[in-house]
Amino acid sequence: MDLFAKLHTNLGPLGKHSELAEGYFAFPKLEGEIAPRMKFKGKEVLTWSLNNYLGLANHPEIRKADADAAAKWGAAYPMGARMMSGQTDLHEQLERELAEFVGKDSAYLLNYGYQGIMSVIDSLLDRKDVVVYDSECHACIIDALRMHMGKRYVFPHNDIESCEKQLQRATKLADETGGGVLLITEGVFGMTGDQGKLAEIVKLKEKYEFKILVDDAHGFGTLGKTGAGAGEEQGVQDQIDLYFSTFAKSMASIGAFIAGNTQVIRYLKYNMRSQIFAKSLPMIFVEGALKRLDMIRTRPELKDNLWKIVDALRNGLKEKGFSTGNSNSPVTPVVLNGTVGEAATLSKDLRENYSIFCSVVIYPVVPKGMIILRLIPTAVHTLEDVKETIAAFEAIKEKLTSGYYKTTELAISFGE
Amino acid sequence: MDLFAKLHTNLGPLGKHSELAEGYFAFPKLEGEIAPRMKFKGKEVLTWSLNNYLGLANHPEIRKADADAAAKWGAAYPMGARMMSGQTDLHEQLERELAEFVGKDSAYLLNYGYQGIMSVIDSLLDRKDVVVYDSECHACIIDALRMHMGKRYVFPHNDIESCEKQLQRATKLADETGGGVLLITEGVFGMTGDQGKLAEIVKLKEKYEFKILVDDAHGFGTLGKTGAGAGEEQGVQDQIDLYFSTFAKSMASIGAFIAGNTQVIRYLKYNMRSQIFAKSLPMIFVEGALKRLDMIRTRPELKDNLWKIVDALRNGLKEKGFSTGNSNSPVTPVVLNGTVGEAATLSKDLRENYSIFCSVVIYPVVPKGMIILRLIPTAVHTLEDVKETIAAFEAIKEKLTSGYYKTTELAISFGE
Repeated sequence: MDLFAKLHTNLGPLGKHSELAEGYFAFPKLEGEIAPRMKFKGKEVLTWSLNNYLGLANHPEIRKADADAAAKWGAAYPMGARMMSGQTDLHEQLERELAEFVGKDSAYLLNYGYQGIMSVIDSLLDRKDVVVYDSECHACIIDALRMHMGKRYVFPHNDIESCEKQLQRATKLADETGGGVLLITEGVFGMTGDQGKLAEIVKLKEKYEFKILVDDAHGFGTLGKTGAGAGEEQGVQDQIDLYFSTFAKSMASIGAFIAGNTQVIRYLKYNMRSQIFAKSLPMIFVEGALKRLDMIRTRPELKDNLWKIVDALRNGLKEKGFSTGNSNSPVTPVVLNGTVGEAATLSKDLRENYSIFCSVVIYPVVPKGMIILRLIPTAVHTLEDVKETIAAFEAIKEKLTSGYYKTTELAISFGE
Repeated sequence: MDLFAKLHTNLGPLGKHSELAEGYFAFPKLEGEIAPRMKFKGKEVLTWSLNNYLGLANHPEIRKADADAAAKWGAAYPMGARMMSGQTDLHEQLERELAEFVGKDSAYLLNYGYQGIMSVIDSLLDRKDVVVYDSECHACIIDALRMHMGKRYVFPHNDIESCEKQLQRATKLADETGGGVLLITEGVFGMTGDQGKLAEIVKLKEKYEFKILVDDAHGFGTLGKTGAGAGEEQGVQDQIDLYFSTFAKSMASIGAFIAGNTQVIRYLKYNMRSQIFAKSLPMIFVEGALKRLDMIRTRPELKDNLWKIVDALRNGLKEKGFSTGNSNSPVTPVVLNGTVGEAATLSKDLRENYSIFCSVVIYPVVPKGMIILRLIPTAVHTLEDVKETIAAFEAIKEKLTSGYYKTTELAISFGE
């Protein structure tokens, strides 16, 4: 039959809402400079949906560095894959600085985080190896594991008892196959904002033989005394074998890196398919990352500001009876139960009548039935922004409790 | 056992040469502006290793556009995934212009080509679907197929008889499973430079029910009357169901796009995991691509110059008895047989004594035993460059034939 026939009848779990959602809940356009106040559909909104944790995206020094780098190098430089013709001194310098910053021997840049971590995982594993991973690992990790020919065991999110059971099974199986065990988790889970229980997991190394890879996309720059991430925050950075972070969050850029011991990084450099067979990270982002890293190192006030906002927002929301789940990172989820329709109506009310813009996260990004209004505080938000937001959330909370979002003429039905 | 133990003893097929190769054959640094003359280890070399086909990387108008875009937007803009907070009018405008340029109803931007095409393929297929593909498809396509739960049939590179047999098997199997058939090939094969036999393959649609996806990374901008690629060149663009190209070659940038009928593109937009769960293509590249596309459309002399150089180079090499394989695209492989050591010595001789820099491609990028000196002509090379290169190749050809590269004290042994 026609391969495309199925696409005409089923646009998929997100696409099926597209008629109602597009341009509003899906693919909204935020216009103007990256900042807490941007325009949505021509109207100013207070924005809590950008992973610009440290406010670097639009910092004047960063904007100057980005503009200078583009003027100096253009967007094309360097041409070609790193191994073929895309190597530069600055790529190497950034790698040295990143390695030092996260306390590892070596680091290697990745041209994009998603395909980068896929290739990290892919090139470490052969079919004899066994993977143990957290059930809420990011899509890029799951996609990597879909390429793995060997066995994998999942444990329910942050359930350390189950994690240990899976490690037991995995090490037993690896003994039989002659392979090794890789445990994969995250420093911070991006949807729920809770940190991976790294300290508890690395303690299991005393009982089981495994290596641990941590995706710290949301922890890098936001957690730990120096901003070196969740491993530093939990005092176990030296026991993380491979540390990964994207530049797409705190660094307000694109690209990523992997850090670990020199021999392993050297192996990865020669074996990661998405890096051998695709273009090197453009120089604009390399220069930009050098400047951003320098600011993270030398301007602790950026992280301090971030946490001032995080604490004020979270405490305020909790006082008003909102659940922010188990978050212990800047990611502040407001967890709701209810229909997708109710969440949509509530979110529309927030945008239209309270001028507050935040992402609405629904299945399949989070489990069915759960709806998350996800707030991303940044160093450039103000306490006034927080106050305004809490007042708005208080108002919508009342409406939600009263059933208003089911009955109002605003109500959006998603055909449930 | 220790997961990393195997890495200490085996750096992989490319890594095993790292002690000898690094910084020279692997990860060489080309310094200076992107141009036919760059510096390698402090010395000027005539460079034939950058996919800057149309010379746009360093074109003054492009450099200005890139610098202006970075000054206007910074490197961070837009923050977030396309679906969440990364949508802009300019992304949509570029999509409309790309779709029109390649003669399709719709197009969708991809934040990076490698992960982009992986997700295109991944989201089109379920386990009932069957794939037929060319054996020399790029690594990104192979990685996509490694995620496919259903059956796949490979045909030897450009072997249409075998392709038909695999289509026969695939359509029979798909009839049983209730799935569809996707055929994947390339517009131009990047290592050998020969075009995929698109005209012959689409003719098989008269006999078999399948859709065809073409990766035209090296054809876009270089082939066809208007530069719309291999489908246009072969007069079958309208029969290509999904047309993919990266911006990393002719467009001298990063990012990519997929084009096809509106309903299919709409489906992809809502289902491609690497696009839903990773950051949108930065605005620098969106603005840059708009300018680049405009130049491709309005400056046919760029492509004419490219082909003037291609033809002069290829004819000259052939006259001197070099095989350039079956290339009918700008990619000009000089195909050699011999040990990796001989190729390395020859290539070193070229760089040190003739100041000619080209990529040496060895296993696993090409089959074992084959060595390709891969020349990428561009619109900014000159006929003088061609003349100099042919003279140098003539000289090394004599040395190769005489066995010089086995015996010279330059000789590099890779422990074969």
